[in-house]
Amino acid sequence: MVNINTTSRFEIRPSIRVGETSDVYLQRTLTILRNEGVNPLVTTEFRPERGGVLCGVEEALLLLEEVLPDSGSEVWSLGEGESVGAGEVALRIKAPYSAYGLYETAMCGILSSCTAWATAARECVDAAGGTEGGIPIVATPARHVHPNSAAIVDYAAVQGGCISCSTIVGARLAGVTPEGDMPHALPLLLGDSVKAIQSFDRYLPQGVPRVALVDTFKDEAEDALNVAQALRDRLRGVRLDTPAERGGVSIELVREVRARLDLAGLRHVEIVVSGGFYPERIRKFAAAAPVDRFLVGTYIASAKPNSFTADIHEVDGRPIAKRGRIPGVTANPRLDRRI
Amino acid sequence: MVNINTTSRFEIRPSIRVGETSDVYLQRTLTILRNEGVNPLVTTEFRPERGGVLCGVEEALLLLEEVLPDSGSEVWSLGEGESVGAGEVALRIKAPYSAYGLYETAMCGILSSCTAWATAARECVDAAGGTEGGIPIVATPARHVHPNSAAIVDYAAVQGGCISCSTIVGARLAGVTPEGDMPHALPLLLGDSVKAIQSFDRYLPQGVPRVALVDTFKDEAEDALNVAQALRDRLRGVRLDTPAERGGVSIELVREVRARLDLAGLRHVEIVVSGGFYPERIRKFAAAAPVDRFLVGTYIASAKPNSFTADIHEVDGRPIAKRGRIPGVTANPRLDRRI
Amino acid sequence: MVNINTTSRFEIRPSIRVGETSDVYLQRTLTILRNEGVNPLVTTEFRPERGGVLCGVEEALLLLEEVLPDSGSEVWSLGEGESVGAGEVALRIKAPYSAYGLYETAMCGILSSCTAWATAARECVDAAGGTEGGIPIVATPARHVHPNSAAIVDYAAVQGGCISCSTIVGARLAGVTPEGDMPHALPLLLGDSVKAIQSFDRYLPQGVPRVALVDTFKDEAEDALNVAQALRDRLRGVRLDTPAERGGVSIELVREVRARLDLAGLRHVEIVVSGGFYPERIRKFAAAAPVDRFLVGTYIASAKPNSFTADIHEVDGRPIAKRGRIPGVTANPRLDRRI
Amino acid sequence: MVNINTTSRFEIRPSIRVGETSDVYLQRTLTILRNEGVNPLVTTEFRPERGGVLCGVEEALLLLEEVLPDSGSEVWSLGEGESVGAGEVALRIKAPYSAYGLYETAMCGILSSCTAWATAARECVDAAGGTEGGIPIVATPARHVHPNSAAIVDYAAVQGGCISCSTIVGARLAGVTPEGDMPHALPLLLGDSVKAIQSFDRYLPQGVPRVALVDTFKDEAEDALNVAQALRDRLRGVRLDTPAERGGVSIELVREVRARLDLAGLRHVEIVVSGGFYPERIRKFAAAAPVDRFLVGTYIASAKPNSFTADIHEVDGRPIAKRGRIPGVTANPRLDRRI
Amino acid sequence: MVNINTTSRFEIRPSIRVGETSDVYLQRTLTILRNEGVNPLVTTEFRPERGGVLCGVEEALLLLEEVLPDSGSEVWSLGEGESVGAGEVALRIKAPYSAYGLYETAMCGILSSCTAWATAARECVDAAGGTEGGIPIVATPARHVHPNSAAIVDYAAVQGGCISCSTIVGARLAGVTPEGDMPHALPLLLGDSVKAIQSFDRYLPQGVPRVALVDTFKDEAEDALNVAQALRDRLRGVRLDTPAERGGVSIELVREVRARLDLAGLRHVEIVVSGGFYPERIRKFAAAAPVDRFLVGTYIASAKPNSFTADIHEVDGRPIAKRGRIPGVTANPRLDRRI
Amino acid sequence: MVNINTTSRFEIRPSIRVGETSDVYLQRTLTILRNEGVNPLVTTEFRPERGGVLCGVEEALLLLEEVLPDSGSEVWSLGEGESVGAGEVALRIKAPYSAYGLYETAMCGILSSCTAWATAARECVDAAGGTEGGIPIVATPARHVHPNSAAIVDYAAVQGGCISCSTIVGARLAGVTPEGDMPHALPLLLGDSVKAIQSFDRYLPQGVPRVALVDTFKDEAEDALNVAQALRDRLRGVRLDTPAERGGVSIELVREVRARLDLAGLRHVEIVVSGGFYPERIRKFAAAAPVDRFLVGTYIASAKPNSFTADIHEVDGRPIAKRGRIPGVTANPRLDRRI
Repeated sequence: MVNINTTSRFEIRPSIRVGETSDVYLQRTLTILRNEGVNPLVTTEFRPERGGVLCGVEEALLLLEEVLPDSGSEVWSLGEGESVGAGEVALRIKAPYSAYGLYETAMCGILSSCTAWATAARECVDAAGGTEGGIPIVATPARHVHPNSAAIVDYAAVQGGCISCSTIVGARLAGVTPEGDMPHALPLLLGDSVKAIQSFDRYLPQGVPRVALVDTFKDEAEDALNVAQALRDRLRGVRLDTPAERGGVSIELVREVRARLDLAGLRHVEIVVSGGFYPERIRKFAAAAPVDRFLVGTYIASAKPNSFTADIHEVDGRPIAKRGRIPGVTANPRLDRRI
Repeated sequence: MVNINTTSRFEIRPSIRVGETSDVYLQRTLTILRNEGVNPLVTTEFRPERGGVLCGVEEALLLLEEVLPDSGSEVWSLGEGESVGAGEVALRIKAPYSAYGLYETAMCGILSSCTAWATAARECVDAAGGTEGGIPIVATPARHVHPNSAAIVDYAAVQGGCISCSTIVGARLAGVTPEGDMPHALPLLLGDSVKAIQSFDRYLPQGVPRVALVDTFKDEAEDALNVAQALRDRLRGVRLDTPAERGGVSIELVREVRARLDLAGLRHVEIVVSGGFYPERIRKFAAAAPVDRFLVGTYIASAKPNSFTADIHEVDGRPIAKRGRIPGVTANPRLDRRI
Repeated sequence: MVNINTTSRFEIRPSIRVGETSDVYLQRTLTILRNEGVNPLVTTEFRPERGGVLCGVEEALLLLEEVLPDSGSEVWSLGEGESVGAGEVALRIKAPYSAYGLYETAMCGILSSCTAWATAARECVDAAGGTEGGIPIVATPARHVHPNSAAIVDYAAVQGGCISCSTIVGARLAGVTPEGDMPHALPLLLGDSVKAIQSFDRYLPQGVPRVALVDTFKDEAEDALNVAQALRDRLRGVRLDTPAERGGVSIELVREVRARLDLAGLRHVEIVVSGGFYPERIRKFAAAAPVDRFLVGTYIASAKPNSFTADIHEVDGRPIAKRGRIPGVTANPRLDRRI
Repeated sequence: MVNINTTSRFEIRPSIRVGETSDVYLQRTLTILRNEGVNPLVTTEFRPERGGVLCGVEEALLLLEEVLPDSGSEVWSLGEGESVGAGEVALRIKAPYSAYGLYETAMCGILSSCTAWATAARECVDAAGGTEGGIPIVATPARHVHPNSAAIVDYAAVQGGCISCSTIVGARLAGVTPEGDMPHALPLLLGDSVKAIQSFDRYLPQGVPRVALVDTFKDEAEDALNVAQALRDRLRGVRLDTPAERGGVSIELVREVRARLDLAGLRHVEIVVSGGFYPERIRKFAAAAPVDRFLVGTYIASAKPNSFTADIHEVDGRPIAKRGRIPGVTANPRLDRRI
Repeated sequence: MVNINTTSRFEIRPSIRVGETSDVYLQRTLTILRNEGVNPLVTTEFRPERGGVLCGVEEALLLLEEVLPDSGSEVWSLGEGESVGAGEVALRIKAPYSAYGLYETAMCGILSSCTAWATAARECVDAAGGTEGGIPIVATPARHVHPNSAAIVDYAAVQGGCISCSTIVGARLAGVTPEGDMPHALPLLLGDSVKAIQSFDRYLPQGVPRVALVDTFKDEAEDALNVAQALRDRLRGVRLDTPAERGGVSIELVREVRARLDLAGLRHVEIVVSGGFYPERIRKFAAAAPVDRFLVGTYIASAKPNSFTADIHEVDGRPIAKRGRIPGVTANPRLDRRI
Repeated sequence: MVNINTTSRFEIRPSIRVGETSDVYLQRTLTILRNEGVNPLVTTEFRPERGGVLCGVEEALLLLEEVLPDSGSEVWSLGEGESVGAGEVALRIKAPYSAYGLYETAMCGILSSCTAWATAARECVDAAGGTEGGIPIVATPARHVHPNSAAIVDYAAVQGGCISCSTIVGARLAGVTPEGDMPHALPLLLGDSVKAIQSFDRYLPQGVPRVALVDTFKDEAEDALNVAQALRDRLRGVRLDTPAERGGVSIELVREVRARLDLAGLRHVEIVVSGGFYPERIRKFAAAAPVDRFLVGTYIASAKPNSFTADIHEVDGRPIAKRGRIPGVTANPRLDRRI
C-alpha cells in the first residue's frame, strides 16, 4: 500500500479542530470533568464492526499529532491500507482524556467512512484479479457523494487498490493522475460521437488518453467502429456505458465489439466499461469478456459505514470497562507505535 | 418543512466553486467546447433513482446563484423536504452550458447524499408516529460519517423530520438546538452513574436537560432507580443503551424500567433509547414500549446514496436526448421556478 | 369460439387410421378380444390432468366419425375452444370396444397436445387484455416444433385466441390469413433496413402490411426513424426484436421509440414486439408500453402436454372401473351429444 | 449411437418440401430477393439454446439433399445422437440462399423438437445407470403428443438411449421392435388379471413377452402372486402402474412384491414399473428397488423444445452478422462435412 | 368444557406428594429457608409460553388442596379447558412459601404437558369442523407415550375436544367410553378381514360398534365391499389405515370406497380413517372426503410441551420480581378464586 | 453406557400389568382369539421411525419377563443406549400371542418416549464435545413434563450421556447423584445473591457444590464478582440464567464474566449456564465461550416421540405380514437374545 507521507496531504478543517463537528455530549463531558478536576491518563481502543481494509488512520493520526501533549502520550495503530478483522483493535490511544476525548466523534467518523470505501474498492479490485495483473479499476464515486467528501472517497478508493480516480482533489490527495474521457454531453452538444472524439483529440494535451464514449446516439458496435476508423492509431479506447433502458453493458456486447474491432484490424483499441459494476458482476466480466478497464462509482460510494466504536479499557493504568466489554488493554501484536 | 432562508446557511467551499471536486472529464469537456466555440442554451434535468424526501436542493441553488448569468437562465425545482418520486424531475436548469456544466458532479453529489439521509430520517420518524404527535427522534449520525459531512448529514436528518441532532455545526445549519446527554466515558471516569449525573447537574447550565445514561456498570433497572432517587425531580430522563453483548435494548426492558420507576413514584422520569434503531424496530417499540425519545445514528448514516442522474433534454430549444432517454423537456407541474 | 365446420379441414393421416401410431399393446388387446369373442359396448371417458382451453376435440370427432358404426354409438363432448376443468370429463364414447379401442393413443395425443397449446395461447391473450379490446397476439410457434405439427400448433393457438399465425398450413387450418414481416436475413442480404423495407414495399402485394424489422444493424430508435422517414405513410409499423445480447426488448425502449416517432410526426407507425414473450411479461408491457402487436412463439410451442387419460366406466351398461376410479358414468351436464 | 442409414427411413412430407410449413415471411423474403436479383452464397449456422443430445440432423440433411444444388454447396454437422453444447454450432450450411432459405422454419423445428426429446430420454437412461449395464427404459410418449409426431418422438427417444418404444411407426423409424404388454382395458373387459394374462398367453405369438398388469382390481402384491402362480414359468414379468389415488408405485411396493414373489419361489418373474417416472425418481428407484424395466412417457413427451436459432455469418465469403452476433464463420472442429 | 368434579378422579402419586419428582434445588431451598426462619407469604404466578387450551389446572388444584394451609391461602385460576393466551397468568398462588415451593416442578410439569396435549387435540377438532357439528375425532396417542402418561394424555385430548380415546385408564379419567375396533393382528391371526369381522361380531358385546379394518391383505376398496357384504346391516363402519408404503389414506381413496359401497347399496357403512392425521390434512379431508371419524395419535402425542414459568411477584404484600419481570401482582380479570 | 442391572430399578405399575393402559382394541382382540381358540406362536418386530439412541428396552424386557411363559419364548434386542437406525429391528418377540399381545401399546410407548429423550440428550452431549472430554451436561427436563414421567425422562437423558439430572427419582433410577444449585426464589426471599449463597454455604452439607445464581437483581458480571468475593475458595461456580428480556445468556457475557473473575484472581470459579440451550447453540458456546457446565431442560423434554411400530412377521413359523411389510423374520445380526 502507498502510505508514505500521505499524512501531510490532509488538512484538518478548523471546525473539526475546535470540536464543532463533535457530538455535543463530548463537549459537556469535558466541561464537567474540568470542573471536577478529573483528567486521568485514559486508554481508548477503536475497533470496526466488520473486517475490511483499514483507511483513515493517517488522517486520524494527523489530528492526534495536533492535539496530544508531547510527553506521556502513546498511540498505536495498524497501517493505512492494511486488513483489519471484525472487532480487532485498529487504533489505541493512551493520553490525558482532556487532550483527545472531544475528537471521538471525528475519529470514529473518519475511520468508519474511509474503511468502508476502501474495503468496497478492494472487493472490486479483487474481483477483477487483484492489484497484481488484474484488470485496472478507476474509481468514479464523486457524483454519488456530497462534494465535501469527494476528495476523501477518491483517496480511500485508491488506498483500496483502484488505479486512479475521477476528481482533481481526490487524485491530488491520493497521489495519482485523475482519469476521465467524456460525458454524454460532449457528443450531444457536438452532434455525434465521431465529431466528439475528433475535437477531443484536437484540443486536449497529448498526455490525455483518447477514449471515446460510444453509446450516445447509435448502437455501440456501430459507433465503436466509426470512432476507431476516424482516429485509427490515435485512439486509445472506447467506453461502453449502455443505459439500463438498452439492457446495460453485457458480456456478449463486449465480446462482439472486440470481434468487430479485430475484424477491422483495430486490435489496439481498448474497451472500457462503466455503469453499475459491483464485485460479482466484475468477476463475471473479468472471466468472460475482453475488458481493459472498469469504472466503478456507485458501489464504492454506497458502501455502508463500517462503524468504529471507541471504548475505554484503562484509567490511570487500572483495567476498567463498561458492562459488555473486557477490562484492560486488548493484546494485538499487529499494532505499531505511531506517536 | 422548515426551508425558509436555509440557503444562506450553506457556504460553498472554494474547491467546489473552482471545479476541483468535479469529475475531470467535465473540465475537459468545457475546454473542448470553448475551443470549438460551442456554448448553447442547454436544458438539463436531474432525477433520483428512488423515491424519497428531496434534500440538498437549497445548497444546489446557492451554487447555481453564484455561477449562472443573471439573464437568460431558468431554474425550476421541487422544494427542500418535499417528497419526490422515483425518476421524477426534481431540478431543471436551462442556461448556457459553460456556466454550469462543470458542476454536474457536485450537484448530483449534494442531491444524492442529502436525499438519502433525509429519506432515512423520514422513515424513522414515520415509524415513530410522524412529525405530528409521534415520539421524537434525535439524529446522531455524526460518528459514522467523515467529519467533513457531519454538518450536512445532521441538516438532512432534520429536514427529514428529526427533532434535533447531535453536533453543533449540524444544529446550526439546521436551525435547532443540539442534543446530547453523556457518553459512557463520564460514569467510567467518575466511577459510577449516580456520581456522573450529580456532576452533570452541578456543572451544566439549567437549559440542558438532565438525562442519565444507566447501563455502564449495573443492570439498567437497578441503575435507573439509583439515579432517579438521587436527582428526584431534577432528573428529566434515563437513557438505555444496552450493549449487544447484553442483548441490546428490548421492549420488555423498557416496560420493566417504566414499571419499577412508577412503583417508586418516579413517573416524571422519561425513557430515552439508543443503539441500532431502524424503522421496523422503531415501529415495534413505538407500538409496545413506553419510549419517550429515540436516538438514531447508524440507520441515517448508512443510507445508500439515492443517485441522481443529470440528462440533457434540449439544446437551443431543440428536443434531444441520448439513447435511452426521451427527447424534450419532461412535464412536471410540481416544479416551481427558483431562478 | 370459431368452431363451425373446422372438422372438415383436418385430414386423418392413413397411418393413424390403420393404427400404426397406436401403442402396440392396444393392437394386441384387440387381437386377444377378437379371439375371445369379447366385444362389449364400452363407455370410455377422457379427462385432462389440468384445466385449460379444450382443443383437438373436432379432430378426434372426425376420426371417430370415420370408425364408429352408425347405429348404437354415442359420443358426447365439450366444444372446441371451451374451458375444461382439471379432471373434468371432456369426451365420452359409448360404442363397441373393437370399433375405437385402437385409437386411444391417437385421441389422447390429439387432445393433450392441442389443449396445451390452446391454453398457453389463451394465457397470453388474457395477459394482453383478452380477445375483446386487448392487444392482438400473433402466434409464431412453428420454428420450435417439428414441421409435422406446424399446422396443428398454429390452429390450436388461434383456437386459444391468437389473431393470426405464421405458417400457410396453420392459417389455412385455422381459417385466418397468415402474418409475417421480414426475417433478419432480408436486411442482412440487402445491406440495410431502409433498403429492405423499400424492396418489401416495391415487390409485395398491397394487402401485405409494410412492417419493418429495425434492429439488424443499428440501434432500434435510430433505425425506426430511418425506415419511417423513408416510407412515411406507406409504413404500417416497425418490429422490435432486440437480441438478448442487447438486453432484449424493454418497456423503456418501446416508450422511447414511440416518443421519437411522435416527435417526428410519425404517429401512425405501429410498434410490434417479438422475442421471448410470455404471459407475465406481456402483462407488464400491456400495462406500461405502447405496444400494438405481440408475436409469441416459444411460450406456445413449449406448453407441456396436458395429458388426457381414457378410463372405462361402463361395460354393457354395468358400472365398472379400475382401482382408483369411480365406477359408472360421470355426470357432466356441460357435455353435448356429437355423434 | 445407431445412425447409419437412418436417413432413408424418413419421408419428407410434400407440404414441408413446398414450404407450406414455413413462416410466411420466408416466402415473402424469397419473392423480394428474386425480384431484386439477389442470391448470394450464404453461410448459416444453427445452434441450440441449451446443451443436450443432438437429434433431427439426419432428417434435416435428407431435406437439404433434396433441395441444395449439387455443386457449390457445403453442409457440416455434428452426428445424430452426439452431445451438443449450449450455443454450439451443430449444423452449418453454405449454399445459395434461394436454395434453402425457405426451410429455416422446418429445420429449426426438426432440431428443436427432436433434440429436446432425445435429451429427455438420455436423462432417464443415465438416471437408470446408462446404456451399458443400466436398467432398460422403454419410451411410451405417444399418448401425450399429437399422432403426427408419434413416430418422430419415439425415434428421438431411441436415439437418446431408450431400448425400445411403444408405437409401430416409431419402432420402424428407430429400427427396433415395439414393446407393450396390456392396457387396463384387457383385465377390465375379461373380468380379472389372471384371465387377462391367460388369454394373452393363449393368443399372442411366442415372441411377445408375457407381462401382466397387476393393479386393475386388487392390491398389486396379491395380484402379482395370482398371475405368477397361474402362468408360472411362462410369465416374463408383472407391471406395476399403481394410480396416484393409491399413492403411485413406491420403492417399498417394488421391494415387497419382489419379496413375496421370491418367498413363493417365483424369482424369475421380472418387475416392470410405469406411471410418472422422471430422472430423479428413476435414480432413487434404481438405487433402492429391484426394478427390471422402466416405462417413461410423460417426461419425454413434455420436454420443452430446445430452440435452435439460425444465423447468417457470411455472405459471399464476407463476414457479416446481425447486431448481437459475431461476424464470420464460427470455428467448431467437431463438425463433419456431410454434403 | 366438561370440568365438573374431574378433580376427584386424579390421584396424586406419593412420590409427587413427598417431593421426589421435584428439582432437587427446591428441596435445598426449603432446607435453607427453614434454617434461616424465613417463610413469608409469597405470591407466585404461572404463565404458559404459548397460547392454547389450558389443561392440568384441576390436577394442580388437587395437589394444592392437599398441601396448602386452610387459612391464609388464596388460589386463583382460569378453568380447565379454557383458552389461555401466550404469557397470560393462568394460575396464581398466595400462600406461605414453605407450603408449596417444593411443588413448582410438578405444577409446571402438569400444566406444560397437559396444555400442550389439549391444544393439539383442539387444533385437530377445529380442523374437522369443531365440537359442534364437526366430524368426531378419537384420540389414540397412547402407543406414542410412556404408559405412565397414557391416562393423562387421553384425558387432556378429551379436554381439548376429542369425542373419546383409546385406553381404559384414559377414558375413565376423562369420563368417556373408550373406543377401538381391531388391530392388524386380528385379521393376520384369523387369516382374512371377513373372518376377523365375523368373529368380532360373534364374540363382542352388542354395545361395541362393528368396525372392520380393511387394508390388511387386500386393496381397501375390494376388502370394504367384502366385509360389508358379509355383515350387511350389522356393520357400523370400515377403517382405512393404508400404510405409507401404499401411499397412505388419500381423499380419492375415501371417495372411491364411499362410491363403491353406495353402488352396492351399503350407504349405512361409515368410513373411519387413521394414520398420520394432523390439522392441515384433517382440514383437507373434512372439506373433500366423506369421512365419518378420524383417529389421531401421533399429532397429539408429539405436541411440544407448552412450558409454564412460575414467578414470584409479591413477598409479604410487597411487590418484587427478579430482573426481567414486572414487580407486583399481574391483573387478570379472567381468573376465578378456587381455594 | 451404564446399563448393568438397571432393569431391577424399574417397577411396572399395576395398571400397565393388567392392561389398563393398553389400547382397548387389544383387549377386544384377545377376547375374540380366546373364544376362537386361536393362540399361535407369533413373531413381532419393533422398529423406530427415526434413528437415534435406543432407550426403554430394559423396562420393556422387565415387563416381558413378568408376562412371558418360561419355555418356548424368545426375545431378542439391541442394548439399552445403543444406536438404532431408522426402521431397524430393535426388539423381536417370539411367543404365544396371548401372553404379550396386550402390551403392544405399553411397549411401543416406552420405547417411543425413552428413545426420543435419550436421543435428544445425546445430540446435546455430542454438541458439547461428547462423553469423553466434552463439557458436562446436566438434564433438567422435569419441569416441562408431567410428574408421572419425571423419573423416566431423567433416566433416559442419563442414558443419552448426561452426567446427571435434577430430580431425586430420576437420579435414583439412573444411578447418579442429582444436581441443582438454587432457584431465583432463594435470592428473592433472602434479599440478595450474596446472602443467598452465604446461607446456602452455611446450611447445606459439604458434598453439595456451592454454585450461586447471579442474575436475580443485578447485572451478572457485577453479581458474579460479589458472590465470588464473598465466598472466595468455597465457591465452586456461578450460574448464568439471563432472562430473554435481557437477551439471554450470550457468548460475550460468559467471556466477560470469565475475564472479570480472572482479573480479580478468581480463576477457580466455574461458569454454569442455563436457559434454552439446544444442540446448535451448545455447539457455538462450546467453541467460543469458557463454559464449565450446561443445564438442558426444554430441548430434552420437547423431543418428539420416535414412534415404534410393532409388526407381525411370522405365525407358527410361517412368514406372513400385512400389506406394506415384508413377510418373514428380518435379519439383524446386531440383536442379542435377552429371554
